Amino acid sequence: MITSTRNPKIQDIRALQSRAKRRREAGAFIIEGIRLAEEALAVGWPVQLALYTGDLPERGQRILRRLRDAKVSLEEVSADVMAAASDTPTPQGLLLQLPAGTLELELKLDLVLVLDAIQDPGNLGTLLRSAVAAGAGAALLGPGCADAFSPKVLRAAMGAHFTMPILEWNWGQIGDLLSQRELPLYLAEVSAGQRYDLVDMTQPIALLVGNEAHGPGDEARLLAHDGVHIPIPGEAESLNAAVAGSVLLFEAARQRRAKAAA
Amino acid sequence: MITSTRNPKIQDIRALQSRAKRRREAGAFIIEGIRLAEEALAVGWPVQLALYTGDLPERGQRILRRLRDAKVSLEEVSADVMAAASDTPTPQGLLLQLPAGTLELELKLDLVLVLDAIQDPGNLGTLLRSAVAAGAGAALLGPGCADAFSPKVLRAAMGAHFTMPILEWNWGQIGDLLSQRELPLYLAEVSAGQRYDLVDMTQPIALLVGNEAHGPGDEARLLAHDGVHIPIPGEAESLNAAVAGSVLLFEAARQRRAKAAA
Repeated sequence: MITSTRNPKIQDIRALQSRAKRRREAGAFIIEGIRLAEEALAVGWPVQLALYTGDLPERGQRILRRLRDAKVSLEEVSADVMAAASDTPTPQGLLLQLPAGTLELELKLDLVLVLDAIQDPGNLGTLLRSAVAAGAGAALLGPGCADAFSPKVLRAAMGAHFTMPILEWNWGQIGDLLSQRELPLYLAEVSAGQRYDLVDMTQPIALLVGNEAHGPGDEARLLAHDGVHIPIPGEAESLNAAVAGSVLLFEAARQRRAKAAA
Repeated sequence: MITSTRNPKIQDIRALQSRAKRRREAGAFIIEGIRLAEEALAVGWPVQLALYTGDLPERGQRILRRLRDAKVSLEEVSADVMAAASDTPTPQGLLLQLPAGTLELELKLDLVLVLDAIQDPGNLGTLLRSAVAAGAGAALLGPGCADAFSPKVLRAAMGAHFTMPILEWNWGQIGDLLSQRELPLYLAEVSAGQRYDLVDMTQPIALLVGNEAHGPGDEARLLAHDGVHIPIPGEAESLNAAVAGSVLLFEAARQRRAKAAA
Protein backbone atom coordinates (compact mmCIF):
# COMPACT_ATOMS: atom_id res chain seq x y z
CA MET A 1 0.00 0.00 0.00
CA ILE A 2 1.26 3.48 -0.87
CA THR A 3 1.13 5.71 2.21
CA SER A 4 3.47 8.51 1.19
CA THR A 5 2.41 11.39 -1.03
CA ARG A 6 6.08 11.61 -2.07
CA ASN A 7 5.88 8.24 -3.83
CA PRO A 8 6.99 8.79 -7.45
CA LYS A 9 3.80 7.25 -8.89
CA ILE A 10 1.72 9.71 -6.87
CA GLN A 11 3.90 12.64 -7.88
CA ASP A 12 3.48 11.59 -11.51
CA ILE A 13 -0.30 11.41 -11.19
CA ARG A 14 -0.40 14.85 -9.58
CA ALA A 15 1.55 16.23 -12.54
CA LEU A 16 -0.84 14.52 -14.99
CA GLN A 17 -3.79 16.05 -13.13
CA SER A 18 -2.46 19.59 -13.02
CA ARG A 19 -0.43 20.09 -16.20
CA ALA A 20 -1.58 19.80 -19.83
CA LYS A 21 2.07 19.75 -20.92
CA ARG A 22 2.76 16.70 -18.80
CA ARG A 23 -0.34 14.96 -20.19
CA ARG A 24 0.87 15.59 -23.75
CA GLU A 25 4.41 14.36 -22.99
CA ALA A 26 3.12 11.22 -21.32
CA GLY A 27 0.23 10.62 -23.71
CA ALA A 28 -1.94 9.89 -20.69
CA PHE A 29 -4.72 11.36 -18.58
CA ILE A 30 -6.50 10.69 -15.30
CA ILE A 31 -10.13 9.93 -14.57
CA GLU A 32 -11.72 9.68 -11.15
CA GLY A 33 -14.75 7.94 -9.74
CA ILE A 34 -16.69 4.77 -10.38
CA ARG A 35 -19.04 6.12 -13.03
CA LEU A 36 -16.37 7.43 -15.39
CA ALA A 37 -14.32 4.26 -14.86
CA GLU A 38 -17.32 2.11 -15.82
CA GLU A 39 -17.84 4.15 -18.99
CA ALA A 40 -14.15 3.83 -19.95
CA LEU A 41 -14.25 0.05 -19.44
CA ALA A 42 -17.52 -0.24 -21.34
CA VAL A 43 -15.88 1.02 -24.54
CA GLY A 44 -12.75 -1.06 -23.95
CA TRP A 45 -10.46 1.90 -23.28
CA PRO A 46 -7.07 0.56 -22.03
CA VAL A 47 -6.04 1.31 -18.45
CA GLN A 48 -2.40 1.92 -17.43
CA LEU A 49 -2.73 2.12 -13.68
CA ALA A 50 -5.42 2.19 -11.00
CA LEU A 51 -5.27 3.64 -7.49
CA TYR A 52 -7.92 2.72 -4.94
CA THR A 53 -8.60 3.08 -1.24
CA GLY A 54 -9.62 0.24 1.07
CA ASP A 55 -13.14 1.59 1.56
CA LEU A 56 -14.09 1.32 -2.13
CA PRO A 57 -17.70 0.07 -2.37
CA GLU A 58 -18.69 -3.18 -4.13
CA ARG A 59 -19.44 -1.41 -7.45
CA GLY A 60 -15.83 -0.19 -7.42
CA GLN A 61 -14.52 -3.61 -6.35
CA ARG A 62 -16.11 -5.08 -9.48
CA ILE A 63 -14.08 -2.65 -11.58
CA LEU A 64 -10.90 -3.65 -9.72
CA ARG A 65 -11.58 -7.35 -10.43
CA ARG A 66 -11.98 -6.63 -14.14
CA LEU A 67 -8.75 -4.63 -14.15
CA ARG A 68 -6.88 -7.34 -12.25
CA ASP A 69 -8.07 -9.94 -14.80
CA ALA A 70 -6.74 -7.63 -17.53
CA LYS A 71 -3.33 -7.53 -15.76
CA VAL A 72 -3.60 -3.80 -15.00
CA SER A 73 -1.30 -2.54 -12.26
CA LEU A 74 -3.42 -1.83 -9.15
CA GLU A 75 -2.18 0.15 -6.15
CA GLU A 76 -4.00 0.46 -2.86
CA VAL A 77 -3.32 3.87 -1.34
CA SER A 78 -4.11 5.54 1.98
CA ALA A 79 -6.90 8.13 2.17
CA ASP A 80 -4.27 10.88 2.50
CA VAL A 81 -2.50 9.72 -0.63
CA MET A 82 -5.78 9.54 -2.57
CA ALA A 83 -6.61 13.06 -1.41
CA ALA A 84 -3.23 14.23 -2.71
CA ALA A 85 -3.63 12.45 -6.06
CA SER A 86 -7.24 13.59 -6.55
CA ASP A 87 -8.36 16.78 -8.24
CA THR A 88 -11.55 16.95 -6.14
CA PRO A 89 -12.10 17.74 -2.46
CA THR A 90 -14.14 14.53 -2.06
CA PRO A 91 -12.30 11.68 -3.82
CA GLN A 92 -14.41 8.64 -4.63
CA GLY A 93 -11.72 6.07 -3.83
CA LEU A 94 -10.90 5.12 -7.44
CA LEU A 95 -8.55 6.85 -9.87
CA LEU A 96 -7.38 5.50 -13.25
CA GLN A 97 -4.57 6.52 -15.56
CA LEU A 98 -5.57 6.03 -19.20
CA PRO A 99 -3.62 6.44 -22.45
CA ALA A 100 -4.65 9.46 -24.52
CA GLY A 101 -6.84 8.68 -27.48
CA THR A 102 -10.30 9.02 -28.87
CA LEU A 103 -13.06 6.96 -30.41
CA GLU A 104 -13.19 6.48 -34.19
CA LEU A 105 -15.42 8.60 -36.37
CA GLU A 106 -18.56 6.90 -37.60
CA LEU A 107 -19.15 6.67 -41.35
CA LYS A 108 -22.37 8.61 -40.94
CA LEU A 109 -21.97 12.08 -39.42
CA ASP A 110 -24.97 14.34 -39.55
CA LEU A 111 -24.42 16.57 -36.50
CA VAL A 112 -20.97 17.81 -35.50
CA LEU A 113 -19.89 20.38 -32.93
CA VAL A 114 -16.84 22.50 -33.76
CA LEU A 115 -15.19 24.60 -31.05
CA ASP A 116 -12.91 27.56 -31.62
CA ALA A 117 -10.76 28.64 -28.68
CA ILE A 118 -13.23 27.70 -25.94
CA GLN A 119 -10.99 28.49 -23.00
CA ASP A 120 -13.04 27.79 -19.91
CA PRO A 121 -12.79 24.10 -18.94
CA GLY A 122 -16.31 24.14 -17.50
CA ASN A 123 -17.72 25.52 -20.75
CA LEU A 124 -15.76 23.00 -22.81
CA GLY A 125 -16.89 20.04 -20.71
CA THR A 126 -20.51 21.23 -20.70
CA LEU A 127 -20.48 21.63 -24.49
CA LEU A 128 -19.15 18.08 -24.91
CA ARG A 129 -21.85 16.76 -22.56
CA SER A 130 -24.56 18.60 -24.51
CA ALA A 131 -23.17 17.40 -27.85
CA VAL A 132 -23.42 13.76 -26.77
CA ALA A 133 -26.91 14.32 -25.37
CA ALA A 134 -28.15 16.01 -28.55
CA GLY A 135 -26.84 13.13 -30.64
CA ALA A 136 -23.76 14.74 -32.21
CA GLY A 137 -21.38 12.27 -33.87
CA ALA A 138 -18.17 14.16 -33.07
CA ALA A 139 -16.65 17.24 -31.48
CA LEU A 140 -13.81 18.94 -33.36
CA LEU A 141 -11.69 21.15 -31.11
CA GLY A 142 -9.70 23.76 -32.99
CA PRO A 143 -6.52 25.48 -31.76
CA GLY A 144 -6.80 27.49 -28.56
CA CYS A 145 -9.37 25.32 -26.79
CA ALA A 146 -8.73 24.22 -23.22
CA ASP A 147 -7.18 20.77 -22.95
CA ALA A 148 -10.02 18.27 -23.39
CA PHE A 149 -8.33 15.88 -20.97
CA SER A 150 -8.00 18.19 -17.98
CA PRO A 151 -9.77 17.02 -14.81
CA LYS A 152 -12.34 19.85 -14.95
CA VAL A 153 -13.27 19.14 -18.56
CA LEU A 154 -13.52 15.41 -17.89
CA ARG A 155 -15.81 16.04 -14.89
CA ALA A 156 -18.10 18.50 -16.68
CA ALA A 157 -18.28 16.28 -19.79
CA MET A 158 -19.78 13.41 -17.75
CA GLY A 159 -18.36 10.62 -19.90
CA ALA A 160 -18.55 12.30 -23.31
CA HIS A 161 -14.94 11.24 -23.95
CA PHE A 162 -16.07 7.61 -23.89
CA THR A 163 -19.13 8.08 -26.08
CA MET A 164 -18.18 10.50 -28.87
CA PRO A 165 -14.96 11.14 -30.84
CA ILE A 166 -13.25 14.30 -29.54
CA LEU A 167 -10.61 15.46 -32.01
CA GLU A 168 -8.10 18.19 -31.15
CA TRP A 169 -7.32 19.30 -34.69
CA ASN A 170 -5.94 22.22 -36.71
CA TRP A 171 -8.16 24.17 -39.10
CA GLY A 172 -6.82 22.29 -42.12
CA GLN A 173 -7.92 18.96 -40.66
CA ILE A 174 -11.28 20.40 -39.60
CA GLY A 175 -11.88 21.90 -43.06
CA ASP A 176 -10.96 18.60 -44.76
CA LEU A 177 -13.41 16.59 -42.67
CA LEU A 178 -16.24 19.06 -43.19
CA SER A 179 -15.77 19.03 -46.96
CA GLN A 180 -15.30 15.23 -47.18
CA ARG A 181 -18.47 14.66 -45.19
CA GLU A 182 -20.34 17.52 -46.91
CA LEU A 183 -21.17 19.22 -43.64
CA PRO A 184 -21.96 22.94 -43.99
CA LEU A 185 -20.47 24.90 -41.07
CA TYR A 186 -22.70 27.42 -39.28
CA LEU A 187 -20.97 29.85 -36.92
CA ALA A 188 -22.79 30.87 -33.76
CA GLU A 189 -22.89 34.67 -33.83
CA VAL A 190 -24.36 37.19 -31.40
CA SER A 191 -26.65 38.71 -34.02
CA ALA A 192 -25.26 38.08 -37.52
CA GLY A 193 -26.39 35.36 -39.91
CA GLN A 194 -29.67 33.47 -39.96
CA ARG A 195 -32.08 33.04 -37.07
CA TYR A 196 -31.31 29.61 -35.59
CA ASP A 197 -34.89 28.40 -35.72
CA LEU A 198 -35.12 29.25 -39.43
CA VAL A 199 -32.02 27.22 -40.39
CA ASP A 200 -32.92 23.73 -41.62
CA MET A 201 -31.02 21.59 -39.14
CA THR A 202 -32.67 18.37 -40.28
CA GLN A 203 -29.94 18.16 -42.93
CA PRO A 204 -26.35 17.21 -41.98
CA ILE A 205 -24.79 20.23 -40.29
CA ALA A 206 -21.77 21.35 -38.28
CA LEU A 207 -22.25 24.02 -35.60
CA LEU A 208 -19.33 26.16 -34.44
CA VAL A 209 -19.10 27.96 -31.10
CA GLY A 210 -16.30 30.50 -30.75
CA ASN A 211 -14.24 31.98 -27.96
CA GLU A 212 -16.12 33.24 -24.90
CA ALA A 213 -14.97 36.85 -25.35
CA HIS A 214 -14.19 37.20 -29.06
CA GLY A 215 -16.48 34.74 -30.86
CA PRO A 216 -15.36 32.83 -33.97
CA GLY A 217 -11.85 33.61 -35.28
CA ASP A 218 -10.68 34.35 -38.83
CA GLU A 219 -9.75 30.75 -39.69
CA ALA A 220 -13.15 29.49 -38.58
CA ARG A 221 -14.80 32.19 -40.69
CA LEU A 222 -12.96 30.98 -43.81
CA LEU A 223 -14.63 27.58 -43.44
CA ALA A 224 -18.11 28.90 -42.67
CA HIS A 225 -21.16 28.35 -44.83
CA ASP A 226 -23.16 30.96 -42.88
CA GLY A 227 -23.73 32.49 -39.46
CA VAL A 228 -26.55 31.56 -37.11
CA HIS A 229 -27.83 33.49 -34.11
CA ILE A 230 -30.22 33.01 -31.22
CA PRO A 231 -32.42 36.10 -30.87
CA ILE A 232 -32.20 37.68 -27.41
CA PRO A 233 -35.52 39.28 -26.47
CA GLY A 234 -34.27 40.45 -23.06
CA GLU A 235 -31.78 43.07 -21.95
CA ALA A 236 -28.62 41.01 -22.39
CA GLU A 237 -25.85 41.34 -24.92
CA SER A 238 -24.96 37.71 -25.34
CA LEU A 239 -25.26 34.19 -23.97
CA ASN A 240 -22.75 32.02 -22.19
CA ALA A 241 -20.86 30.05 -24.86
CA ALA A 242 -21.89 26.66 -23.46
CA VAL A 243 -25.53 27.80 -23.34
CA ALA A 244 -25.45 29.13 -26.91
CA GLY A 245 -23.95 25.89 -28.24
CA SER A 246 -26.42 23.79 -26.28
CA VAL A 247 -29.45 25.76 -27.45
CA LEU A 248 -28.29 25.27 -31.06
CA LEU A 249 -27.63 21.55 -30.57
CA PHE A 250 -31.05 20.98 -29.04
CA GLU A 251 -32.73 22.96 -31.79
CA ALA A 252 -31.20 20.45 -34.21
CA ALA A 253 -32.53 17.59 -32.08
CA ARG A 254 -35.97 19.25 -31.88
CA GLN A 255 -36.22 19.79 -35.65
CA ARG A 256 -35.11 16.22 -36.37
CA ARG A 257 -37.68 14.79 -33.97
CA ALA A 258 -40.41 16.96 -35.49
CA LYS A 259 -39.43 15.85 -39.00
CA ALA A 260 -39.29 12.17 -38.03
CA ALA A 261 -42.78 12.44 -36.54
CA ALA A 262 -44.22 14.24 -39.58
CA MET B 1 -4.00 55.98 -0.90
CA ILE B 2 -4.35 52.58 0.79
CA THR B 3 -1.13 50.59 0.36
CA SER B 4 -1.54 47.96 3.09
CA THR B 5 -3.60 44.83 2.63
CA ARG B 6 -4.07 44.89 6.42
CA ASN B 7 -6.14 48.08 6.20
CA PRO B 8 -9.50 47.36 7.93
CA LYS B 9 -11.51 48.46 4.86
CA ILE B 10 -9.61 45.98 2.73
CA GLN B 11 -10.01 43.22 5.30
CA ASP B 12 -13.73 43.94 5.34
CA ILE B 13 -13.99 43.75 1.57
CA ARG B 14 -12.10 40.47 1.51
CA ALA B 15 -14.59 39.06 4.01
CA LEU B 16 -17.52 40.30 1.89
CA GLN B 17 -16.00 38.64 -1.17
CA SER B 18 -15.36 35.29 0.43
CA ARG B 19 -18.12 34.71 2.97
CA ALA B 20 -21.89 34.59 2.38
CA LYS B 21 -22.44 34.91 6.13
CA ARG B 22 -20.53 38.19 6.24
CA ARG B 23 -22.52 39.49 3.25
CA ARG B 24 -25.79 38.69 5.04
CA GLU B 25 -24.63 40.32 8.30
CA ALA B 26 -23.47 43.46 6.52
CA GLY B 27 -26.31 43.57 3.97
CA ALA B 28 -23.73 44.31 1.31
CA PHE B 29 -21.92 42.75 -1.64
CA ILE B 30 -19.02 43.51 -3.96
CA ILE B 31 -18.92 43.96 -7.71
CA GLU B 32 -15.82 44.33 -9.84
CA GLY B 33 -15.04 45.87 -13.17
CA ILE B 34 -16.25 48.76 -15.27
CA ARG B 35 -19.09 46.97 -17.05
CA LEU B 36 -20.89 45.75 -13.94
CA ALA B 37 -20.36 49.14 -12.28
CA GLU B 38 -21.96 50.90 -15.27
CA GLU B 39 -24.95 48.58 -15.09
CA ALA B 40 -25.39 49.17 -11.36
CA LEU B 41 -25.25 52.94 -11.85
CA ALA B 42 -27.64 52.77 -14.81
CA VAL B 43 -30.42 51.41 -12.57
CA GLY B 44 -29.58 53.84 -9.76
CA TRP B 45 -28.30 51.19 -7.34
CA PRO B 46 -26.69 52.96 -4.33
CA VAL B 47 -22.93 52.61 -3.81
CA GLN B 48 -21.35 52.46 -0.35
CA LEU B 49 -17.66 52.52 -1.23
CA ALA B 50 -15.44 52.40 -4.30
CA LEU B 51 -11.83 51.25 -4.59
CA TYR B 52 -9.79 52.09 -7.66
CA THR B 53 -6.22 51.94 -8.89
CA GLY B 54 -4.37 54.85 -10.52
CA ASP B 55 -4.31 53.19 -13.94
CA LEU B 56 -8.10 53.08 -14.29
CA PRO B 57 -8.99 53.93 -17.93
CA GLU B 58 -11.16 56.91 -18.91
CA ARG B 59 -14.36 54.82 -18.98
CA GLY B 60 -13.70 53.99 -15.33
CA GLN B 61 -12.77 57.59 -14.50
CA ARG B 62 -16.23 58.65 -15.69
CA ILE B 63 -17.75 56.27 -13.16
CA LEU B 64 -15.54 57.72 -10.42
CA ARG B 65 -16.67 61.27 -11.29
CA ARG B 66 -20.33 60.24 -11.04
CA LEU B 67 -19.67 58.56 -7.69
CA ARG B 68 -17.77 61.61 -6.38
CA ASP B 69 -20.70 63.84 -7.38
CA ALA B 70 -22.98 61.48 -5.43
CA LYS B 71 -20.71 61.85 -2.36
CA VAL B 72 -19.66 58.20 -2.40
CA SER B 73 -16.51 57.40 -0.45
CA LEU B 74 -13.69 56.73 -2.97
CA GLU B 75 -10.37 55.13 -2.06
CA GLU B 76 -7.38 54.88 -4.34
CA VAL B 77 -5.45 51.69 -3.62
CA SER B 78 -2.15 50.21 -4.78
CA ALA B 79 -2.14 47.38 -7.32
CA ASP B 80 -1.18 44.96 -4.55
CA VAL B 81 -4.10 46.02 -2.41
CA MET B 82 -6.52 45.73 -5.34
CA ALA B 83 -5.15 42.24 -6.05
CA ALA B 84 -5.83 41.32 -2.41
CA ALA B 85 -9.35 42.79 -2.45
CA SER B 86 -10.25 41.26 -5.80
CA ASP B 87 -11.79 37.84 -6.37
CA THR B 88 -10.19 37.53 -9.82
CA PRO B 89 -6.57 36.96 -10.88
CA THR B 90 -6.77 39.98 -13.23
CA PRO B 91 -8.50 42.87 -11.39
CA GLN B 92 -9.90 45.61 -13.59
CA GLY B 93 -8.96 48.48 -11.29
CA LEU B 94 -12.47 49.20 -10.00
CA LEU B 95 -14.35 47.55 -7.15
CA LEU B 96 -17.62 48.72 -5.60
CA GLN B 97 -19.39 47.81 -2.37
CA LEU B 98 -23.17 47.91 -2.82
CA PRO B 99 -26.02 47.44 -0.37
CA ALA B 100 -27.94 44.17 -0.79
CA GLY B 101 -31.27 44.49 -2.54
CA THR B 102 -33.12 43.69 -5.69
CA LEU B 103 -35.24 45.33 -8.35
CA GLU B 104 -39.01 45.48 -7.95
CA LEU B 105 -41.29 42.98 -9.61
CA GLU B 106 -43.13 44.25 -12.66
CA LEU B 107 -46.92 44.12 -12.67
CA LYS B 108 -46.82 41.90 -15.74
CA LEU B 109 -44.93 38.64 -15.29
CA ASP B 110 -45.26 36.10 -18.04
CA LEU B 111 -41.97 34.18 -17.78
CA VAL B 112 -40.37 33.38 -14.43
CA LEU B 113 -37.44 31.14 -13.56
CA VAL B 114 -37.60 29.27 -10.24
CA LEU B 115 -34.49 27.57 -8.87
CA ASP B 116 -34.44 24.81 -6.29
CA ALA B 117 -31.11 24.19 -4.54
CA ILE B 118 -28.87 25.10 -7.46
CA GLN B 119 -25.57 24.78 -5.64
CA ASP B 120 -22.89 25.53 -8.19
CA PRO B 121 -22.26 29.29 -8.43
CA GLY B 122 -21.35 29.02 -12.11
CA ASN B 123 -24.63 27.25 -12.87
CA LEU B 124 -26.61 29.77 -10.84
CA GLY B 125 -24.99 32.77 -12.53
CA THR B 126 -25.40 31.24 -15.98
CA LEU B 127 -29.10 30.53 -15.32
CA LEU B 128 -29.65 34.15 -14.26
CA ARG B 129 -27.86 35.39 -17.40
CA SER B 130 -29.99 33.13 -19.60
CA ALA B 131 -33.20 34.18 -17.83
CA VAL B 132 -32.53 37.86 -18.55
CA ALA B 133 -31.60 37.09 -22.15
CA ALA B 134 -34.74 35.03 -22.73
CA GLY B 135 -36.90 37.84 -21.35
CA ALA B 136 -37.83 36.42 -17.94
CA GLY B 137 -39.34 38.95 -15.56
CA ALA B 138 -37.91 37.48 -12.37
CA ALA B 139 -35.82 34.69 -10.86
CA LEU B 140 -37.10 33.13 -7.63
CA LEU B 141 -34.36 31.33 -5.68
CA GLY B 142 -35.67 28.77 -3.23
CA PRO B 143 -33.83 27.50 -0.15
CA GLY B 144 -30.53 25.75 -0.75
CA CYS B 145 -29.38 27.79 -3.73
CA ALA B 146 -25.86 29.21 -3.75
CA ASP B 147 -25.69 32.83 -2.55
CA ALA B 148 -26.79 34.98 -5.51
CA PHE B 149 -24.39 37.73 -4.41
CA SER B 150 -21.17 35.70 -4.35
CA PRO B 151 -18.43 36.94 -6.70
CA LYS B 152 -18.68 33.88 -8.97
CA VAL B 153 -22.43 34.20 -9.37
CA LEU B 154 -22.16 37.93 -10.05
CA ARG B 155 -19.50 37.34 -12.70
CA ALA B 156 -21.35 34.52 -14.48
CA ALA B 157 -24.66 36.44 -14.34
CA MET B 158 -23.15 39.31 -16.39
CA GLY B 159 -25.31 42.04 -14.91
CA ALA B 160 -28.54 40.07 -14.42
CA HIS B 161 -28.73 41.44 -10.85
CA PHE B 162 -29.18 44.93 -12.28
CA THR B 163 -31.76 43.97 -14.90
CA MET B 164 -34.12 41.44 -13.34
CA PRO B 165 -35.53 40.97 -9.81
CA ILE B 166 -33.71 38.10 -8.06
CA LEU B 167 -35.63 37.00 -4.99
CA GLU B 168 -34.16 34.62 -2.40
CA TRP B 169 -37.42 33.31 -1.00
CA ASN B 170 -38.92 30.39 0.92
CA TRP B 171 -41.41 28.04 -0.72
CA GLY B 172 -44.37 29.78 0.90
CA GLN B 173 -43.42 33.09 -0.69
CA ILE B 174 -42.73 31.42 -4.03
CA GLY B 175 -46.09 29.60 -3.96
CA ASP B 176 -47.92 32.82 -3.07
CA LEU B 177 -46.45 34.75 -5.97
CA LEU B 178 -47.12 31.97 -8.47
CA SER B 179 -50.76 31.75 -7.43
CA GLN B 180 -51.29 35.53 -7.24
CA ARG B 181 -49.84 35.96 -10.72
CA GLU B 182 -51.54 32.79 -12.06
CA LEU B 183 -48.28 31.29 -13.24
CA PRO B 184 -48.38 27.48 -13.66
CA LEU B 185 -45.10 25.94 -12.49
CA TYR B 186 -43.42 23.36 -14.75
CA LEU B 187 -40.61 21.33 -13.21
CA ALA B 188 -37.66 20.38 -15.40
CA GLU B 189 -37.38 16.61 -15.16
CA VAL B 190 -34.97 14.17 -16.77
CA SER B 191 -37.72 12.23 -18.51
CA ALA B 192 -41.04 12.69 -16.67
CA GLY B 193 -43.81 15.10 -17.63
CA GLN B 194 -44.52 16.64 -21.01
CA ARG B 195 -42.07 17.06 -23.85
CA TYR B 196 -40.83 20.66 -23.62
CA ASP B 197 -41.59 21.50 -27.22
CA LEU B 198 -45.20 20.33 -26.80
CA VAL B 199 -45.90 22.57 -23.77
CA ASP B 200 -47.58 25.83 -24.76
CA MET B 201 -45.07 28.36 -23.45
CA THR B 202 -46.73 31.29 -25.17
CA GLN B 203 -48.95 31.53 -22.09
CA PRO B 204 -47.59 32.91 -18.79
CA ILE B 205 -45.41 30.21 -17.26
CA ALA B 206 -42.89 29.55 -14.50
CA LEU B 207 -40.06 27.08 -15.16
CA LEU B 208 -38.29 25.34 -12.29
CA VAL B 209 -34.79 23.86 -12.41
CA GLY B 210 -33.79 21.64 -9.50
CA ASN B 211 -30.61 20.61 -7.78
CA GLU B 212 -27.75 19.42 -10.01
CA ALA B 213 -27.67 15.92 -8.50
CA HIS B 214 -31.17 15.35 -7.14
CA GLY B 215 -33.52 17.41 -9.32
CA PRO B 216 -36.59 19.14 -7.87
CA GLY B 217 -37.30 18.62 -4.17
CA ASP B 218 -40.55 17.73 -2.41
CA GLU B 219 -41.61 21.31 -1.65
CA ALA B 220 -41.13 22.32 -5.28
CA ARG B 221 -43.21 19.31 -6.34
CA LEU B 222 -46.12 20.43 -4.15
CA LEU B 223 -46.32 23.67 -6.15
CA ALA B 224 -45.95 22.07 -9.57
CA HIS B 225 -48.57 22.13 -12.30
CA ASP B 226 -46.70 19.51 -14.34
CA GLY B 227 -43.27 18.23 -15.31
CA VAL B 228 -41.45 19.06 -18.52
CA HIS B 229 -38.50 17.27 -20.10
CA ILE B 230 -36.04 17.75 -22.93
CA PRO B 231 -35.74 14.50 -24.90
CA ILE B 232 -32.13 13.25 -25.08
CA PRO B 233 -31.55 11.43 -28.36
CA GLY B 234 -27.88 10.66 -27.58
CA GLU B 235 -26.14 8.40 -25.08
CA ALA B 236 -26.33 10.71 -22.07
CA GLU B 237 -28.38 10.43 -18.91
CA SER B 238 -29.03 14.09 -18.28
CA LEU B 239 -28.06 17.66 -19.07
CA ASN B 240 -26.15 20.21 -17.06
CA ALA B 241 -28.69 22.13 -14.95
CA ALA B 242 -27.80 25.49 -16.48
CA VAL B 243 -28.10 24.02 -19.97
CA ALA B 244 -31.47 22.42 -19.23
CA GLY B 245 -32.88 25.67 -17.82
CA SER B 246 -31.52 27.67 -20.72
CA VAL B 247 -32.91 25.31 -23.37
CA LEU B 248 -36.35 25.62 -21.70
CA LEU B 249 -36.13 29.42 -21.44
CA PHE B 250 -35.17 29.78 -25.10
CA GLU B 251 -37.95 27.42 -26.16
CA ALA B 252 -40.36 29.87 -24.49
CA ALA B 253 -38.71 32.74 -26.38
CA ARG B 254 -38.88 30.79 -29.65
CA GLN B 255 -42.56 29.92 -29.26
CA ARG B 256 -43.46 33.49 -28.35
CA ARG B 257 -41.60 34.87 -31.38
CA ALA B 258 -43.30 32.34 -33.64
CA LYS B 259 -46.73 33.24 -32.23
CA ALA B 260 -46.09 36.98 -32.54
CA ALA B 261 -45.11 36.51 -36.19
CA ALA B 262 -48.15 34.35 -37.01
